[in-house]
Amino acid sequence: MIETASLVDQYCHGVLRTELGLGTFETQLGGAVGQPAAGTTFFDTQTGFAVRRWCPPLLGLEPHCPPAHYLARRRELGALETGRRLLRSTGIRAYLVDTGLPGDLTGPGETAAVGAAGGHEVVRLERLAERVADVSGGASTFLAGLAESVHHAAATAVAFGAVGATAHGGVLAPEPPGPGAVRGAAVRWLTGRRAGGRLTDPLLLRHLLWTAIGTGLPLQLRPGGGLGDDGAFARTGADSADPVPLTAFAAATAGLGADLVLLGCYPYHRQAARLASVFPHVYVDLGSVLTRTGAGAAAVLAQMLDVAPFGKLMFSSGSRGLPELHVVAAATFREALDRVLGGWVADGAWSPGDARRVAGMIAEGNARRVYGLPAG
Amino acid sequence: MIETASLVDQYCHGVLRTELGLGTFETQLGGAVGQPAAGTTFFDTQTGFAVRRWCPPLLGLEPHCPPAHYLARRRELGALETGRRLLRSTGIRAYLVDTGLPGDLTGPGETAAVGAAGGHEVVRLERLAERVADVSGGASTFLAGLAESVHHAAATAVAFGAVGATAHGGVLAPEPPGPGAVRGAAVRWLTGRRAGGRLTDPLLLRHLLWTAIGTGLPLQLRPGGGLGDDGAFARTGADSADPVPLTAFAAATAGLGADLVLLGCYPYHRQAARLASVFPHVYVDLGSVLTRTGAGAAAVLAQMLDVAPFGKLMFSSGSRGLPELHVVAAATFREALDRVLGGWVADGAWSPGDARRVAGMIAEGNARRVYGLPAG
Amino acid sequence: MIETASLVDQYCHGVLRTELGLGTFETQLGGAVGQPAAGTTFFDTQTGFAVRRWCPPLLGLEPHCPPAHYLARRRELGALETGRRLLRSTGIRAYLVDTGLPGDLTGPGETAAVGAAGGHEVVRLERLAERVADVSGGASTFLAGLAESVHHAAATAVAFGAVGATAHGGVLAPEPPGPGAVRGAAVRWLTGRRAGGRLTDPLLLRHLLWTAIGTGLPLQLRPGGGLGDDGAFARTGADSADPVPLTAFAAATAGLGADLVLLGCYPYHRQAARLASVFPHVYVDLGSVLTRTGAGAAAVLAQMLDVAPFGKLMFSSGSRGLPELHVVAAATFREALDRVLGGWVADGAWSPGDARRVAGMIAEGNARRVYGLPAG
Repeated sequence: MIETASLVDQYCHGVLRTELGLGTFETQLGGAVGQPAAGTTFFDTQTGFAVRRWCPPLLGLEPHCPPAHYLARRRELGALETGRRLLRSTGIRAYLVDTGLPGDLTGPGETAAVGAAGGHEVVRLERLAERVADVSGGASTFLAGLAESVHHAAATAVAFGAVGATAHGGVLAPEPPGPGAVRGAAVRWLTGRRAGGRLTDPLLLRHLLWTAIGTGLPLQLRPGGGLGDDGAFARTGADSADPVPLTAFAAATAGLGADLVLLGCYPYHRQAARLASVFPHVYVDLGSVLTRTGAGAAAVLAQMLDVAPFGKLMFSSGSRGLPELHVVAAATFREALDRVLGGWVADGAWSPGDARRVAGMIAEGNARRVYGLPAG
Repeated sequence: MIETASLVDQYCHGVLRTELGLGTFETQLGGAVGQPAAGTTFFDTQTGFAVRRWCPPLLGLEPHCPPAHYLARRRELGALETGRRLLRSTGIRAYLVDTGLPGDLTGPGETAAVGAAGGHEVVRLERLAERVADVSGGASTFLAGLAESVHHAAATAVAFGAVGATAHGGVLAPEPPGPGAVRGAAVRWLTGRRAGGRLTDPLLLRHLLWTAIGTGLPLQLRPGGGLGDDGAFARTGADSADPVPLTAFAAATAGLGADLVLLGCYPYHRQAARLASVFPHVYVDLGSVLTRTGAGAAAVLAQMLDVAPFGKLMFSSGSRGLPELHVVAAATFREALDRVLGGWVADGAWSPGDARRVAGMIAEGNARRVYGLPAG
Repeated sequence: MIETASLVDQYCHGVLRTELGLGTFETQLGGAVGQPAAGTTFFDTQTGFAVRRWCPPLLGLEPHCPPAHYLARRRELGALETGRRLLRSTGIRAYLVDTGLPGDLTGPGETAAVGAAGGHEVVRLERLAERVADVSGGASTFLAGLAESVHHAAATAVAFGAVGATAHGGVLAPEPPGPGAVRGAAVRWLTGRRAGGRLTDPLLLRHLLWTAIGTGLPLQLRPGGGLGDDGAFARTGADSADPVPLTAFAAATAGLGADLVLLGCYPYHRQAARLASVFPHVYVDLGSVLTRTGAGAAAVLAQMLDVAPFGKLMFSSGSRGLPELHVVAAATFREALDRVLGGWVADGAWSPGDARRVAGMIAEGNARRVYGLPAG
């Protein structure tokens, strides 16, 4: 039995403060994916089945009870009490919260308070740049303010994120853009911009990534930019979670002191694991992959353990909005780890001590080392 | 035990009416793949082993008997009686037959009669356009006839197919071509064409796809165009079953009312499943993937269930020529489904009722809904 | 129980003649991958765990003993005696040694002597061309000498290899370059070259591949050129083991009489297997994939058996430097084969006789046929 009492959730968003009806809950279950097809429901997915397996017992119901019963019980308890019961069941000791999503979501401190754990901020670079632009008079002020803000954020944040940035072509060019080009792009962007306008200019995004690299803090990237983050997918119709196009950027940033953490590469998780085996500064996130694959997660985890050095993989939940997703992530991860590593121990392929040690590394040790968190 | 008594075969071709010798049978086993390498045989494949496992007992022989014994018994019974015994053992209640392949193959009605089931036509768009061209005087007549033929076919067919079309660059551009360009392409194609000449012009193929989309009928597409369909692979030397390049076309056709059904994406079946999770109108075919992977099918099925909503996957056999392939598809599918879903029930990950319900959806329910077939 | 007493290692390098300390040994474990990340070690990988599982007992220690104990025992025995004990435990009856790597490595004859087996040379085309250039006065002499050397090598070598060549764009164009272009490239390369200078000119490499094809000997190719071979990866920052870009080259060389053997395609091993199912002259290597995935190898092997004809897969170790890697390759392969094929026999999917026959084909029979080795 491979046990992992403590977890660090190295990438998540907060949970919704509002009460949820059946329809809203189902939409959240589907993530950024839009509406279900006619005649289908997002409850009929691995995530939906995993929520129905793990969460009802935490609220005093039978596993696999009908969604309507679960939602009724959830409303009875209220969003806050539900959040408390769910998050505190997970064994997550620290939440790294990406604060770049809109919506009535808890921040790092509030998430940590609900979950009785530590909370840390992952600063989303695009949002930070937009806030600087909102208060800048022109390109010079903006660029100076940006540099200062990034370095200021680095003092308290544990990582930077630029999850939607990689959806834009050229952002991952293997060298920083020159100062003239950056200035020109800033002028163009600021000129056409109204307060709150989103940053999607590839050259400025590229400048932002390299500025963040300069701080030495880990940088979280999602190949292809993810579904729906910043609406990039909807705009371009292009989506690929394949991390291989990040290879040149990884080669260019090797040895500069900042680690890269690849998020959400499924079904290219083996490619991500391979990059982590090639580049000392590349790490791979496990969590959201496992959350979305539910009963199939053990096979996915085993594939990620094929070639990645065991010091390069990190648990997360990848949750947004629903504390249920933290529960599913933690339970799915623990079960998959026990099945895969426990199976190898039973076969004599791994020693029990090595298996326990590797489980602890993936569950929390690697994240504590990479993000400089205190020992658990 | 997850049982699926009834199946809808949502994509297949007819069976050969002629008697088959050992060599011809082996060639058919290899699909469109050409000849086996010196010193090897197509019987030494998962499909070959699966045929030898499942079919001999249906003709009164031992499983895994030598191919020559099986073929002798097959000739003794005759092609028709063999077809009857094999097809009627499958539990397939409806055949959706793509009639676009050459050869002495049974059509939907005859296939259905042999199999004592329902039969429906999937109209291959390229073949339909070629038949219209054969009787058209010029571009105007051709284009008018094409529009009429597509809409006429939509009245009786259950779906359109354009399986080889996607091998041609530009066919999947995310908007229909303009009328002038279509007219120019029609003039060029008709000028150089002799009766029976194949349609491979990318612009006309693209026009055809968008005309079909306009009917609201489901459209079956095979990423890369498949091996050997229309000889596209042999001509171009380019082959990829990866559906990711269809993303922009999927985005452009979302909400227009026609569903897209992705065929034959192995080994990119996880990418196909992911597209089905993103776009409400995208569905994924299971069958030919499972037929070709035989003893390995359970692992492939599990991967397709990772992220696809369960309402988006549909069984098929993908058979062409040999009723043995229908047997293998049905048996492989049933065994894989029982192993994968049954395993999850045994682990407590899924409830038994959910597992039975999802099995029925994939086996026939989803196809009946998508193609508007009567309840089984 | 599926047993494979004898193996042919169809792709490996020699073993290091020097004594190894803990640090050097760890570097060798990581292959061409560079240094481990701070806070991690290459011993914490599937390969590292597999070495600790299989090798210590062969030197009289407990499985999974600490690396330092193992290295101490290794030094006590000496490199030669260690090599003897390890290699002779593997059941490898023939080593096909790619002699194109630098370093103090044993050649085919010495490797064979240490392992008490047969030894054969795989001639690396780039190295051969460089040796010819070292003694050639000008382009004409060089090109004539190259043609002669390739055909001379074909008389004694069992295969050609061009493992790093495919990292260079255009090398896999589907036709040989014209004589004028070849001559021009030779003049340019020789002009700027000093003795020992590496051949990286894509046009000359392409000429070399087609010259080798002309001999009819099998040609070993590694999609993307591999990590670190010739430093190509480090130079370009581009790396992909995906064999799909080789499709046009495979189509162009079909029927010319030379087989292509795809090495090291993980995590695109299913794509490689699919190419082997499409082209009669394409074969796929298993070994280094299995060596690197250790406890996960059975799942990888099963995936390669999905669609590849069983006559198209061949064992190898892919080892370089450490005889431990031969041990791991052989043990991992045997265990994976027994688990996968044995499981299918237990399920009734395969007959026991077929399973034993296929095991023998993959272990040695296919390689003996493809490379024209005497029966084992």
